[in-house]
Amino acid sequence: MEVSTTTVKLTLPDGCNGILVKNLCDPYMRIRMERIEGPNLFSSFTPASPLTGYAVAKVLDSGHPDFKAGDLVWGPSGWEEYSLITATESLHKIQHTDVPLSYYTGLLGMPGMTAYAGFYEVCSPKKGEYVFISAASGAVGQLVGQFAKMLGCYVVGSAGSKEKVDLLTNKFGFDNAFNYKEEHDLDAALKRYFPEGIDIYFENVGGKTLDAVLLNMRVHGRIAVCGMISQYNLDPPEGVKNLMCLIYNRIHMKGFTVRDYVHLHPKFLDTVLPYIKEGKIVYVEDIAEGLESAPAALVGLFSGRNVGKQVVLVARK
Amino acid sequence: MEVSTTTVKLTLPDGCNGILVKNLCDPYMRIRMERIEGPNLFSSFTPASPLTGYAVAKVLDSGHPDFKAGDLVWGPSGWEEYSLITATESLHKIQHTDVPLSYYTGLLGMPGMTAYAGFYEVCSPKKGEYVFISAASGAVGQLVGQFAKMLGCYVVGSAGSKEKVDLLTNKFGFDNAFNYKEEHDLDAALKRYFPEGIDIYFENVGGKTLDAVLLNMRVHGRIAVCGMISQYNLDPPEGVKNLMCLIYNRIHMKGFTVRDYVHLHPKFLDTVLPYIKEGKIVYVEDIAEGLESAPAALVGLFSGRNVGKQVVLVARK
Repeated sequence: MEVSTTTVKLTLPDGCNGILVKNLCDPYMRIRMERIEGPNLFSSFTPASPLTGYAVAKVLDSGHPDFKAGDLVWGPSGWEEYSLITATESLHKIQHTDVPLSYYTGLLGMPGMTAYAGFYEVCSPKKGEYVFISAASGAVGQLVGQFAKMLGCYVVGSAGSKEKVDLLTNKFGFDNAFNYKEEHDLDAALKRYFPEGIDIYFENVGGKTLDAVLLNMRVHGRIAVCGMISQYNLDPPEGVKNLMCLIYNRIHMKGFTVRDYVHLHPKFLDTVLPYIKEGKIVYVEDIAEGLESAPAALVGLFSGRNVGKQVVLVARK
Repeated sequence: MEVSTTTVKLTLPDGCNGILVKNLCDPYMRIRMERIEGPNLFSSFTPASPLTGYAVAKVLDSGHPDFKAGDLVWGPSGWEEYSLITATESLHKIQHTDVPLSYYTGLLGMPGMTAYAGFYEVCSPKKGEYVFISAASGAVGQLVGQFAKMLGCYVVGSAGSKEKVDLLTNKFGFDNAFNYKEEHDLDAALKRYFPEGIDIYFENVGGKTLDAVLLNMRVHGRIAVCGMISQYNLDPPEGVKNLMCLIYNRIHMKGFTVRDYVHLHPKFLDTVLPYIKEGKIVYVEDIAEGLESAPAALVGLFSGRNVGKQVVLVARK
């Protein structure tokens, strides 16, 4: 992975109905670095081409009637300073600029929608239920926990450092949190925090954590499978052994991505923007400055170096 | 496991509001031979006590107003010739005796209800969908396949012998079937039978089969987790490695047992009894004669010795 420099002309090619944008900040993707075969949600990256991911960008030139120079957008773009985007149907125009623009890569963008749809639509949560979230201080987890607390759930999160654990209880209002690296027996840790068992598990890590959670799920529990970050760099992945618990306790386990919930975006903004303005929802970002910091920021995600949503700031405006 | 002989008095103890029954035929359970801790669907068997399981029985004496001597019932009873049942609320009275009584341990009993609820309620099937069933000639699988064919699905089953595979296609009307023991690459076998992928997997075996199926599920596919018989005698069980596919294809995986669907029993009988009488549904049983054959019949299930639903015939009337 390297940062390469080329010269680009900052106007659209003649007859192009795409838009030319300047990228402001940029998140990550890992799954697409695998060779992906068959019909799939994700397509592989092309080696020697810029990665793509969700970004906030400013339109510099437009051949499309819905966009004009100066518009702010978020959606799939390139890990580069300037991008020519022809798949404009995937872009969202940014209407509310009285929040940090970087929020549209996180709290108000794809991760935020993921937390919102995953919690409210996939988990079918009820007041008073017991909720466990792994990778709980990350881009998605921190929001899921705050949604769950607002609904009146008991919420515990796991993370990989004291700093992150402190964030969970002190900043995000989790009832409890623990550092999974300090628990040699995850099953015992979960039994300590959930003596009555877990109703909802918001799954971000997979592997051993999922195996321990399966032993602690309550009857009719729900597992929303959002990610399995502990497994992405393992080949083969760890095997999950306790799936029989799905039967014992009639557990509903559902993989999901935000793609199936795009229609909820207006409702999501109407719900979350007031919460932000009233201070009922907070969001922590870990901002790396400059496109040249992007490779290290991406790699750092897999050792948990980031605290909160990792963002790469490419340009301020 | 041994067959023991004792003398019993065939009348109820004074003041008992249970019923005394003579057991006619008797299925199996395996899971309860483990030490089971915590609140759970299943309780462990007590060593040196008779196993319990679902049986058909004739009431000999009754202290309960809903039952009288001569009534036929099915439900939880003991692996013994005579049982005193106090938990009468779990019993179903048999109203229709123009079918083999043994069917109430299978097609019309708990396995039949499991197939019915599992397919129609858990799988949310639609006409034309691609359905895969493992352990497909067993007590539950053979019925799921016939329900799926009646709905207009494409149905493939796996089983462990040529005789069973022939049953699937020749007797139960599956579109295709294969012997998993002859496929060294289950993923390749599934790709051959499902070039378009699998919409519905009715899971009875777990382990390697589940891992191969996960690689072949279609977007928004459903996995009804009914059993994992390949894993019950393994400690630890095989790990399942391909759970990330749940996310890629937004798959819904749900463990279930018949316990949550008992209210559907009348509707189930109204649906299935006519099918039996019209010959639209057939059922294959493997009957072991005599209670003394029960231990071997139970053990045989785990090497696949039985063909069709294993029943132990304790007495004819």
